[in-house]
Amino acid sequence: MSNEEKKNYTIGIIGGTGKEGKGLAYRWVKAGHKVIIGSRQWEKAQKAVEAVSDLLGGETELLEGMENRDAVAGCEIAVITVPYAAHRPTLEGLKDVLGGKILIDVVVPIVQPKVTKAQMPKAGSAAQEAQEILGEDCRVVDAFQNISHERLTNKGDIDCDVLVCGKGKAARDVVLRLVEDAGLRGWDAGPIENAVVVEGLTSILIGLNIQHHVHASGIRITGMPDQE
Amino acid sequence: MSNEEKKNYTIGIIGGTGKEGKGLAYRWVKAGHKVIIGSRQWEKAQKAVEAVSDLLGGETELLEGMENRDAVAGCEIAVITVPYAAHRPTLEGLKDVLGGKILIDVVVPIVQPKVTKAQMPKAGSAAQEAQEILGEDCRVVDAFQNISHERLTNKGDIDCDVLVCGKGKAARDVVLRLVEDAGLRGWDAGPIENAVVVEGLTSILIGLNIQHHVHASGIRITGMPDQE
Repeated sequence: MSNEEKKNYTIGIIGGTGKEGKGLAYRWVKAGHKVIIGSRQWEKAQKAVEAVSDLLGGETELLEGMENRDAVAGCEIAVITVPYAAHRPTLEGLKDVLGGKILIDVVVPIVQPKVTKAQMPKAGSAAQEAQEILGEDCRVVDAFQNISHERLTNKGDIDCDVLVCGKGKAARDVVLRLVEDAGLRGWDAGPIENAVVVEGLTSILIGLNIQHHVHASGIRITGMPDQE
Repeated sequence: MSNEEKKNYTIGIIGGTGKEGKGLAYRWVKAGHKVIIGSRQWEKAQKAVEAVSDLLGGETELLEGMENRDAVAGCEIAVITVPYAAHRPTLEGLKDVLGGKILIDVVVPIVQPKVTKAQMPKAGSAAQEAQEILGEDCRVVDAFQNISHERLTNKGDIDCDVLVCGKGKAARDVVLRLVEDAGLRGWDAGPIENAVVVEGLTSILIGLNIQHHVHASGIRITGMPDQE
């Protein structure tokens, strides 16, 4: 990454009006990226833009709100943060505009009521399901599954690393840079087949939250050169 | 666990002559448990006992070496640490003696040459495969998958937590106590369906070892009350 020229992206967040989408938008705009918050309804997207703009002390230049389709059409890198039930229909409806792009899939296939049990879709994971729906022309990369959403709008450090796995090292490297720009430490967790681990880990963390009465259990990678 | 009376177990380690088996034996004997190191060959088991005894400064009373079948028959809690290729045949051959016991499955279904890609058996994970083979009468619990084997025979701290998942909370609690007795911090990672996460995480960590030229990347759980 160090040899790569710094570049600011235009990032479109599908379903970006929730806590996670707003939190990512906040952090990326702060890092100099342009963010288009997408929603099924234009009005909701505007409201989310206002909320994020407030967090940023009135910043508006790098923020925009659009319907999901326009947000994707206008972006270089797309992000999806919708409840799992909306994952497939949303992607099916946006397949044509996602072609040629990287899609950062933040969705976890949580199945009620057994939220502490990893229950993956037939494709193996939400990311693989997305990849199947979108075809080879879009590169799907998992990230941010294990981050507590509330923490993203905090200014403070988040005590959780981000595992990045997905289609192709080049796409993962772009996402790793966006993880860093969001103020988090990311790790290349390998091919999209590892998405079951990254997504399933969320169920384990939810279980730990319940057992230990906390709200934001997470993970850190250890044993790296700077830690020895 | 704090209300539970301290009890020393007799632990039988199937295929206990490798680094992992010897490391666990070393740590458990140090904590006061009796350990039977099992092997396909009686002679190899004796050699492993000698090696562990040396590590312990000559301790022999709590250590024994036997053929796998005898090690299981004579233990209260069994552990399996064999290469994945030997996982199914070994368990099929020991099914009758494993009945009524807890089996700690340490095996990771690593498939060469793509060791950095999670590739689970049809049952979903090695643990679920073991549970299918052994039937309801044996409780299979995953643990120690993410620990660097070499580190187990060190006296020092291991900078990696242990995720414990498997059949039933009571069995997981026993294993969590044995994790603690081995000098490690364990977490209840929920039902056996989460074994895909715990086992698959090893592929991600192997990938990080390769990328970052380290030998023992691991994970720590964060966000717990004592860490906030």
